[in-house]
Amino acid sequence: MDEKQKEFFMNEAYKEALKAYKKDEVPVGAVVVLDGMIIARAHNNREKKQLIEGHAEFLAMKKAAKKIGSWRLEDTSVFVTMEPCPMCGGAMIQSRVKNCYFATYDLKNGVSNSIIEMFELPFNHKVNCEYVDDGGKSSQLLKEFFKKLRRKK
Amino acid sequence: MDEKQKEFFMNEAYKEALKAYKKDEVPVGAVVVLDGMIIARAHNNREKKQLIEGHAEFLAMKKAAKKIGSWRLEDTSVFVTMEPCPMCGGAMIQSRVKNCYFATYDLKNGVSNSIIEMFELPFNHKVNCEYVDDGGKSSQLLKEFFKKLRRKK
Repeated sequence: MDEKQKEFFMNEAYKEALKAYKKDEVPVGAVVVLDGMIIARAHNNREKKQLIEGHAEFLAMKKAAKKIGSWRLEDTSVFVTMEPCPMCGGAMIQSRVKNCYFATYDLKNGVSNSIIEMFELPFNHKVNCEYVDDGGKSSQLLKEFFKKLRRKK
Repeated sequence: MDEKQKEFFMNEAYKEALKAYKKDEVPVGAVVVLDGMIIARAHNNREKKQLIEGHAEFLAMKKAAKKIGSWRLEDTSVFVTMEPCPMCGGAMIQSRVKNCYFATYDLKNGVSNSIIEMFELPFNHKVNCEYVDDGGKSSQLLKEFFKKLRRKK
Protein backbone atom coordinates (compact mmCIF):
# COMPACT_ATOMS: atom_id res chain seq x y z
CA MET A 1 0.00 0.00 0.00
CA ASP A 2 1.45 3.41 -0.92
CA GLU A 3 1.58 6.48 1.31
CA LYS A 4 -1.33 8.23 -0.43
CA GLN A 5 -3.59 5.24 0.19
CA LYS A 6 -2.54 4.98 3.81
CA GLU A 7 -3.28 8.69 4.24
CA PHE A 8 -6.72 8.26 2.64
CA PHE A 9 -7.74 5.28 4.80
CA MET A 10 -6.40 6.88 7.97
CA ASN A 11 -8.52 9.92 7.23
CA GLU A 12 -11.55 7.63 6.91
CA ALA A 13 -10.69 6.20 10.34
CA TYR A 14 -10.42 9.79 11.62
CA LYS A 15 -13.96 10.52 10.39
CA GLU A 16 -15.10 7.64 12.61
CA ALA A 17 -13.16 9.10 15.54
CA LEU A 18 -15.10 12.36 15.07
CA LYS A 19 -18.36 10.41 15.48
CA ALA A 20 -17.12 9.02 18.80
CA TYR A 21 -16.15 12.56 19.88
CA LYS A 22 -19.68 13.80 19.25
CA LYS A 23 -21.07 10.98 21.44
CA ASP A 24 -18.71 11.77 24.32
CA GLU A 25 -16.79 8.55 23.78
CA VAL A 26 -12.98 8.49 23.72
CA PRO A 27 -12.49 9.58 20.09
CA VAL A 28 -10.93 6.65 18.29
CA GLY A 29 -12.03 5.42 14.87
CA ALA A 30 -11.13 2.52 12.62
CA VAL A 31 -11.69 1.04 9.18
CA VAL A 32 -10.90 -2.42 7.82
CA VAL A 33 -9.59 -2.59 4.26
CA LEU A 34 -9.58 -5.61 1.95
CA ASP A 35 -8.47 -5.52 -1.69
CA GLY A 36 -8.25 -1.73 -1.62
CA MET A 37 -11.80 -1.28 -0.34
CA ILE A 38 -13.23 -0.40 3.07
CA ILE A 39 -15.30 -3.39 4.19
CA ALA A 40 -16.08 -2.16 7.72
CA ARG A 41 -15.88 0.99 9.78
CA ALA A 42 -16.56 1.71 13.44
CA HIS A 43 -15.81 4.05 16.30
CA ASN A 44 -15.26 3.57 19.98
CA ASN A 45 -18.63 3.01 21.62
CA ARG A 46 -17.69 1.43 24.89
CA GLU A 47 -19.64 3.55 27.36
CA LYS A 48 -22.87 3.68 25.35
CA LYS A 49 -22.90 -0.05 24.65
CA GLN A 50 -21.08 -1.25 27.79
CA LEU A 51 -19.25 -3.81 25.70
CA ILE A 52 -15.84 -5.08 26.77
CA GLU A 53 -14.85 -5.24 23.09
CA GLY A 54 -16.34 -1.79 22.38
CA HIS A 55 -13.07 -0.30 21.07
CA ALA A 56 -13.14 1.11 17.53
CA GLU A 57 -10.86 -1.42 15.84
CA PHE A 58 -12.44 -4.42 17.59
CA LEU A 59 -15.93 -3.34 16.51
CA ALA A 60 -14.70 -2.74 12.96
CA MET A 61 -13.06 -6.18 12.92
CA LYS A 62 -16.27 -7.80 14.18
CA LYS A 63 -18.21 -6.13 11.37
CA ALA A 64 -15.60 -7.27 8.85
CA ALA A 65 -15.83 -10.86 10.16
CA LYS A 66 -19.60 -10.75 9.80
CA LYS A 67 -19.27 -9.47 6.24
CA ILE A 68 -16.68 -12.07 5.28
CA GLY A 69 -18.59 -14.80 7.14
CA SER A 70 -15.49 -15.93 9.00
CA TRP A 71 -13.40 -14.88 12.00
CA ARG A 72 -10.34 -15.22 9.76
CA LEU A 73 -9.48 -11.73 8.57
CA GLU A 74 -6.54 -12.82 6.44
CA ASP A 75 -5.20 -10.18 4.02
CA THR A 76 -7.05 -7.33 5.73
CA SER A 77 -5.51 -4.08 6.88
CA VAL A 78 -6.85 -2.32 9.97
CA PHE A 79 -6.50 1.47 10.15
CA VAL A 80 -7.07 2.83 13.63
CA THR A 81 -6.42 6.34 14.91
CA MET A 82 -4.79 5.12 18.15
CA GLU A 83 -2.21 2.43 18.90
CA PRO A 84 -4.03 -0.82 19.80
CA CYS A 85 -4.41 -1.99 23.41
CA PRO A 86 -3.49 -5.60 24.35
CA MET A 87 -7.06 -6.82 23.77
CA CYS A 88 -7.34 -5.33 20.27
CA GLY A 89 -3.76 -6.18 19.34
CA GLY A 90 -4.46 -9.72 20.54
CA ALA A 91 -7.65 -9.84 18.48
CA MET A 92 -5.60 -8.89 15.40
CA ILE A 93 -3.21 -11.77 16.09
CA GLN A 94 -6.10 -14.16 16.73
CA SER A 95 -7.99 -13.19 13.58
CA ARG A 96 -4.84 -13.13 11.41
CA VAL A 97 -5.03 -9.52 10.32
CA LYS A 98 -2.21 -8.75 7.85
CA ASN A 99 -1.47 -5.08 8.57
CA CYS A 100 -2.30 -2.60 11.30
CA TYR A 101 -1.74 1.14 10.84
CA PHE A 102 -2.20 3.61 13.69
CA ALA A 103 -1.76 7.37 13.98
CA THR A 104 -1.29 8.13 17.71
CA TYR A 105 0.81 6.40 20.33
CA ASP A 106 -1.00 5.28 23.48
CA LEU A 107 1.61 5.54 26.18
CA LYS A 108 -0.60 3.86 28.81
CA ASN A 109 -1.90 0.88 26.86
CA GLY A 110 -0.25 0.62 23.44
CA VAL A 111 1.17 -2.72 22.37
CA SER A 112 3.07 -1.65 19.28
CA ASN A 113 5.83 0.33 20.96
CA SER A 114 4.47 2.12 24.02
CA ILE A 115 4.22 -0.68 26.61
CA ILE A 116 5.43 -3.63 24.60
CA GLU A 117 6.12 -4.82 21.05
CA MET A 118 3.40 -7.47 21.10
CA PHE A 119 3.58 -8.08 17.37
CA GLU A 120 7.23 -9.07 17.64
CA LEU A 121 6.49 -11.94 20.04
CA PRO A 122 6.42 -15.55 18.78
CA PHE A 123 2.64 -15.98 18.66
CA ASN A 124 1.31 -18.19 15.88
CA HIS A 125 0.51 -15.23 13.62
CA LYS A 126 2.48 -12.06 12.90
CA VAL A 127 0.76 -8.74 12.25
CA ASN A 128 2.75 -6.06 10.43
CA CYS A 129 2.10 -2.92 12.49
CA GLU A 130 3.17 0.58 11.46
CA TYR A 131 2.78 4.13 12.64
CA VAL A 132 1.22 6.48 10.04
CA ASP A 133 1.66 10.24 10.36
CA ASP A 134 -1.71 11.98 10.06
CA GLY A 135 -0.29 15.42 10.84
CA GLY A 136 -1.27 15.09 14.52
CA LYS A 137 -5.04 15.23 13.85
CA SER A 138 -5.99 12.09 15.79
CA SER A 139 -3.78 13.04 18.69
CA GLN A 140 -5.23 16.59 18.75
CA LEU A 141 -8.78 15.23 18.85
CA LEU A 142 -7.93 13.02 21.83
CA LYS A 143 -6.36 15.98 23.63
CA GLU A 144 -9.47 18.09 23.07
CA PHE A 145 -11.67 15.28 24.34
CA PHE A 146 -9.78 14.91 27.61
CA LYS A 147 -9.66 18.69 28.08
CA LYS A 148 -13.45 18.81 27.69
CA LEU A 149 -13.79 15.90 30.13
CA ARG A 150 -11.71 17.67 32.77
CA ARG A 151 -13.79 20.85 32.40
CA LYS A 152 -16.96 18.84 33.03
CA LYS A 153 -15.66 17.34 36.26
CA MET B 1 -10.30 -17.86 47.72
CA ASP B 2 -9.23 -21.18 49.22
CA GLU B 3 -8.00 -24.23 47.31
CA LYS B 4 -11.29 -26.14 47.65
CA GLN B 5 -13.19 -23.25 46.09
CA LYS B 6 -10.70 -22.91 43.25
CA GLU B 7 -11.01 -26.63 42.59
CA PHE B 8 -14.80 -26.40 42.55
CA PHE B 9 -14.96 -23.46 40.13
CA MET B 10 -12.31 -24.95 37.85
CA ASN B 11 -14.38 -28.09 37.65
CA GLU B 12 -17.37 -25.97 36.60
CA ALA B 13 -15.20 -24.46 33.86
CA TYR B 14 -14.22 -28.01 32.87
CA LYS B 15 -17.90 -28.93 32.47
CA GLU B 16 -18.13 -26.11 29.94
CA ALA B 17 -15.05 -27.43 28.13
CA LEU B 18 -16.85 -30.78 27.77
CA LYS B 19 -19.70 -28.98 25.99
CA ALA B 20 -17.23 -27.51 23.50
CA TYR B 21 -15.71 -30.97 22.98
CA LYS B 22 -19.11 -32.38 22.05
CA LYS B 23 -19.55 -29.61 19.46
CA ASP B 24 -16.15 -30.25 17.87
CA GLU B 25 -14.82 -26.96 19.14
CA VAL B 26 -11.41 -26.71 20.82
CA PRO B 27 -12.47 -27.81 24.34
CA VAL B 28 -11.98 -24.82 26.58
CA GLY B 29 -14.49 -23.69 29.19
CA ALA B 30 -14.80 -20.76 31.57
CA VAL B 31 -16.86 -19.36 34.42
CA VAL B 32 -16.90 -15.88 35.95
CA VAL B 33 -17.25 -15.68 39.73
CA LEU B 34 -18.39 -12.70 41.79
CA ASP B 35 -18.94 -12.77 45.55
CA GLY B 36 -18.51 -16.54 45.62
CA MET B 37 -21.15 -17.15 42.96
CA ILE B 38 -20.93 -18.05 39.29
CA ILE B 39 -22.48 -15.17 37.34
CA ALA B 40 -21.60 -16.40 33.83
CA ARG B 41 -20.38 -19.52 32.09
CA ALA B 42 -19.38 -20.23 28.49
CA HIS B 43 -17.36 -22.49 26.26
CA ASN B 44 -15.31 -21.94 23.16
CA ASN B 45 -17.68 -21.52 20.25
CA ARG B 46 -15.51 -19.89 17.65
CA GLU B 47 -16.11 -22.06 14.63
CA LYS B 48 -19.87 -22.37 15.07
CA LYS B 49 -20.38 -18.66 15.65
CA GLN B 50 -17.45 -17.34 13.58
CA LEU B 51 -16.83 -14.71 16.21
CA ILE B 52 -13.36 -13.25 16.69
CA GLU B 53 -14.05 -13.07 20.42
CA GLY B 54 -15.52 -16.62 20.49
CA HIS B 55 -13.06 -17.95 23.08
CA ALA B 56 -14.56 -19.41 26.27
CA GLU B 57 -13.36 -16.79 28.74
CA PHE B 58 -14.20 -13.85 26.44
CA LEU B 59 -17.76 -15.10 25.93
CA ALA B 60 -18.13 -15.68 29.68
CA MET B 61 -16.84 -12.17 30.37
CA LYS B 62 -19.29 -10.70 27.85
CA LYS B 63 -22.16 -12.51 29.58
CA ALA B 64 -20.93 -11.26 32.95
CA ALA B 65 -20.76 -7.68 31.62
CA LYS B 66 -24.31 -7.97 30.34
CA LYS B 67 -25.49 -9.28 33.73
CA ILE B 68 -23.68 -6.56 35.68
CA GLY B 69 -24.74 -3.91 33.14
CA SER B 70 -21.19 -2.63 32.77
CA TRP B 71 -17.97 -3.53 30.98
CA ARG B 72 -16.21 -3.06 34.29
CA LEU B 73 -15.77 -6.52 35.79
CA GLU B 74 -14.08 -5.29 38.96
CA ASP B 75 -13.78 -7.89 41.75
CA THR B 76 -14.56 -10.80 39.44
CA SER B 77 -12.51 -13.98 39.10
CA VAL B 78 -12.31 -15.74 35.74
CA PHE B 79 -11.74 -19.51 35.79
CA VAL B 80 -10.68 -20.86 32.41
CA THR B 81 -9.37 -24.33 31.58
CA MET B 82 -6.57 -23.00 29.33
CA GLU B 83 -4.07 -20.17 29.72
CA PRO B 84 -5.48 -17.01 28.10
CA CYS B 85 -4.34 -15.81 24.66
CA PRO B 86 -3.28 -12.15 24.16
CA MET B 87 -6.82 -11.12 23.14
CA CYS B 88 -8.49 -12.66 26.20
CA GLY B 89 -5.69 -11.64 28.56
CA GLY B 90 -5.99 -8.13 27.13
CA ALA B 91 -9.77 -8.19 27.64
CA MET B 92 -9.19 -9.07 31.31
CA ILE B 93 -6.87 -6.08 31.68
CA GLN B 94 -9.33 -3.83 29.83
CA SER B 95 -12.34 -4.93 31.87
CA ARG B 96 -10.43 -4.86 35.17
CA VAL B 97 -10.89 -8.49 36.14
CA LYS B 98 -9.38 -9.13 39.57
CA ASN B 99 -8.20 -12.75 39.30
CA CYS B 100 -7.65 -15.22 36.51
CA TYR B 101 -7.16 -18.94 37.21
CA PHE B 102 -6.22 -21.39 34.47
CA ALA B 103 -5.52 -25.14 34.42
CA THR B 104 -3.44 -25.84 31.27
CA TYR B 105 -0.52 -23.96 29.78
CA ASP B 106 -0.87 -22.90 26.14
CA LEU B 107 2.67 -22.99 24.82
CA LYS B 108 1.71 -21.39 21.48
CA ASN B 109 -0.45 -18.52 22.66
CA GLY B 110 -0.44 -18.21 26.44
CA VAL B 111 0.22 -14.83 27.99
CA SER B 112 0.65 -15.81 31.61
CA ASN B 113 3.97 -17.64 31.30
CA SER B 114 4.14 -19.46 27.95
CA ILE B 115 4.90 -16.65 25.47
CA ILE B 116 4.97 -13.67 27.79
CA GLU B 117 4.02 -12.48 31.28
CA MET B 118 1.45 -9.98 30.04
CA PHE B 119 -0.03 -9.40 33.48
CA GLU B 120 3.34 -8.23 34.80
CA LEU B 121 3.56 -5.38 32.27
CA PRO B 122 2.79 -1.79 33.34
CA PHE B 123 -0.71 -1.56 31.83
CA ASN B 124 -3.21 0.56 33.75
CA HIS B 125 -4.75 -2.46 35.48
CA LYS B 126 -3.13 -5.52 37.02
CA VAL B 127 -4.80 -8.95 36.90
CA ASN B 128 -3.65 -11.54 39.42
CA CYS B 129 -3.19 -14.67 37.31
CA GLU B 130 -2.50 -18.13 38.74
CA TYR B 131 -2.17 -21.69 37.54
CA VAL B 132 -4.57 -24.14 39.24
CA ASP B 133 -3.85 -27.88 39.19
CA ASP B 134 -6.92 -29.78 38.04
CA GLY B 135 -5.13 -33.13 37.96
CA GLY B 136 -4.47 -32.82 34.23
CA LYS B 137 -8.14 -33.15 33.24
CA SER B 138 -8.34 -30.05 31.03
CA SER B 139 -5.05 -30.86 29.36
CA GLN B 140 -6.14 -34.46 28.73
CA LEU B 141 -9.38 -33.27 27.10
CA LEU B 142 -7.44 -31.00 24.74
CA LYS B 143 -5.10 -33.86 23.83
CA GLU B 144 -8.06 -36.13 23.04
CA PHE B 145 -9.62 -33.43 20.90
CA PHE B 146 -6.52 -32.94 18.77
CA LYS B 147 -6.04 -36.71 18.44
CA LYS B 148 -9.62 -37.01 17.17
CA LEU B 149 -9.03 -34.11 14.78
CA ARG B 150 -5.91 -35.76 13.31
CA ARG B 151 -7.80 -39.02 12.81
CA LYS B 152 -10.49 -37.16 10.85
CA LYS B 153 -7.96 -35.58 8.49
